[in-house]
Parts: sequence; C-alpha cells; structure tokens
Amino acid sequence: MSYTLHHCVDARSFRTLWMLEELGLRYELRMLPFPPRALAKDYLALNPLGTVPLLTADDGVRLTESAATCQYLAARHSPGGLDVAAHEPDHAAYLNWLHMSDATLTFPQTLVLRYARFEPPERQQPQVAHDYARWFLGRLRALEAALADGRPHLCAGRFTAADVAVGYAVMLASFIDLPQPLPGSVAAYWQQLTQRPAYARAQAAQHAAALAQGVSPRPSPLG
Amino acid sequence: MSYTLHHCVDARSFRTLWMLEELGLRYELRMLPFPPRALAKDYLALNPLGTVPLLTADDGVRLTESAATCQYLAARHSPGGLDVAAHEPDHAAYLNWLHMSDATLTFPQTLVLRYARFEPPERQQPQVAHDYARWFLGRLRALEAALADGRPHLCAGRFTAADVAVGYAVMLASFIDLPQPLPGSVAAYWQQLTQRPAYARAQAAQHAAALAQGVSPRPSPLG
Repeated sequence: MSYTLHHCVDARSFRTLWMLEELGLRYELRMLPFPPRALAKDYLALNPLGTVPLLTADDGVRLTESAATCQYLAARHSPGGLDVAAHEPDHAAYLNWLHMSDATLTFPQTLVLRYARFEPPERQQPQVAHDYARWFLGRLRALEAALADGRPHLCAGRFTAADVAVGYAVMLASFIDLPQPLPGSVAAYWQQLTQRPAYARAQAAQHAAALAQGVSPRPSPLG
Repeated sequence: MSYTLHHCVDARSFRTLWMLEELGLRYELRMLPFPPRALAKDYLALNPLGTVPLLTADDGVRLTESAATCQYLAARHSPGGLDVAAHEPDHAAYLNWLHMSDATLTFPQTLVLRYARFEPPERQQPQVAHDYARWFLGRLRALEAALADGRPHLCAGRFTAADVAVGYAVMLASFIDLPQPLPGSVAAYWQQLTQRPAYARAQAAQHAAALAQGVSPRPSPLG
C-alpha cells in the first residue's frame, strides 16, 4: 500500500503527515502553496473543494478531512495501538477527541487567522478574531480537564491518533495571537508530543519537500 | 442500556436524537434553552463547555461532539447497518462524511447564524455572514458530486449514520439566508431523508419535551 498526500506546510494536513510517519508508511508528499484554491488552480481537478489534506491510496481510498485521515490510518494500520477499538472502554472518548480536534478546537482558530492575518487590511475583522480567540480558549477547558492529573495522553492510557489530531490543534495556536498564554497543562502536553521522533520526521519531511518542489515554506496553517 | 441526552431544539444535538430514534434506543431527553451557557448556568456543572449535545449512558460513556455520537451509537448498536465497518470498501468515505458533517458543513453556518442573527445589532457582521454563506455553498460541492447520480445515500449503498450527520447540516441551512438556493440534488436528498419515520419521531419528541419541560421551542440551531 502506498499513499499520496497533498499538503501545505503546517496546514491541517500536517495531522495526516504526522500519522504517516508514526505508522512508518510509504507515501509521496505533494506540496501546494497556500491557499491552493487560489494559488494552485490545477489542484481543483483533484479536489474540487481546493482544501488539504487530500489523501489517496492505490486501492481507491480518498479522504479530505484531516481528523478522518487520522482515524482511518490508525484503524487500518494500527489496531490496538494508535487506534482505540469499539470494545475498549475509551472508545467513546477516542471518537469524541477525534471529532473535537477539528470541529471544536481548529475551526475557531481559522477565524482568527483569516480575519487577523490573511485577509487584506480593509477586510480584517478584529472583533471576529477576538471573539474566536476567546472561543478557542474556552473550548480548551475540555483539554485542561483531561490533562489535569498530568496524564501524557488523552485516552486509553496510551498515545493514539487522538493525540495527533488534538496535538495539531495546539500546534496551530502558536500561529495566532491569544489574549492569554496556553494553560500550563496544555503547553506541557504539547511539549512532550513534540519530542516524538515521528513528529520531528514529519516536520523535516514537509520542509524538505517544500524546498525540493519549489513551494514557499512559509507557515500556511489554514487548509 | 439507557441514555440521557441534553439537547436544545434544532441544535446540533438533533443529530444524536435522530440516531437514538433510528436505533429504537431508550433515552431521557433533557431540554435546555439556547444558548445553555448563558441561559442555563447549572448545566455548566455537567458540561463545562456549555455545549450540546451531552450524551451520557449508564456505563459512564460521555460524548459532547454530535458527529461522534452518531458514529458511536452506530458502531455500538448497529454494526453492518447504520455503521460502516473497517472491512467494508466505503469505510474511508464513511469516516470522511462523518467528520465533514460538522467540521466542514456545519461550522460555516454557525458564523452566519451568529453574525447575522444572534448577535445584537451593533455586533452583527454582514461581511462575515456573507463570507461564510458562500463558504458553505462552496463546500456543498462535495455533497453535490456524491449525489449527482440520484443516489439516496452517501456511502455503502445504504442509509448510515453519515446520512444523519450530513443531513442535519442540510437541515440547518433552512435557518440561514443563502445567496442562492440549495442545489437540486441536495434539496432532493434532504427531502427524502425527512420522510424517514425516525426523523419525524425525533422532531415530535423534541417539541413535546420542550413543551413539557417549559423550554422555549424557538429554533436554536447553534449548540
């Protein structure tokens, strides 16, 4: 099995890249400038939404939702490891974290990025950026509660795809201005995730591929 | 097994209610005014995020992400039916639709609702509401492509939890002003979903419970 991942540096598709490295899978990385729907119009033929990730495989598998790629790769390549099976007590928690990672913890940050940074000055919206920076910090309460006892992982007593998916949402926060620092437990959780060799390999891979493919490596954290 | 669902009329937790009815499960419905974090502060003791759904069960299961509740209930109570198992060819598509339903198809609509309707006049943001109405219509292209051949279901050749999760995102669109009507294939898809007896039972159940519990039944589609 060989995968192809369309990716922008530091965008949500970093979740997928990190998972591919955690699992030691073979993949081809195709870098795109950000946002691809504006700067790489050919890409719309492959993904009419113009979003990343686009993860495809030899067997016809095709995924465009970053949290779904984490869940799919874990279920397929790491049952009982990075996946949490239906018969395990933390299965519900695992699913909840996977869905929360993007729908609840990433989307408010995309508003901050869009209206405080990416839009031209006359379209920036400081009120909206502020509203959703606060929203994000409010939603982090769920993460703080889960990490309050110093646990290094979100569920099942081990590192899982949920940590990749939620970890990326914490990584993204380093690109936005928050009215207060991340809670200490969340910062410590993220710090230990960045020590994983697969995280470092994913970072190295995206920057090497951006250079080799002539794509600007500037941070592009929307997708 | 008995479930308890905290719910606001027509909010994202309608996905959970609809699933409970599809599966014929026993549940207690606890209605909240919208938004509960402002109007039902006691609820914060149960869910510090103040969001709905909150789905709990006798055995300690606890979920707060609506798309995750769909997936969990299907996997637990309807393997091979409303769930699409890992060994089925459409497993990846199933996961992608579940995640897309909230992270990609619901969140832009919450921006339109917030900044065109729920915020007081001095905080409304017509530009943002317009930006995300267009965003939502753009993301619907994925749904149009999947339904282009008149298929009544999104994946696996049968009705699944993905149809509940995505169907709700289409239902929500009836509460917002869009610059153009829904594509015909999407409107037809939604029309046939509303013919399901479980959908009608879920609608009846939320309105009866709101009346019995003295909660305003006005539409409250954020959550």
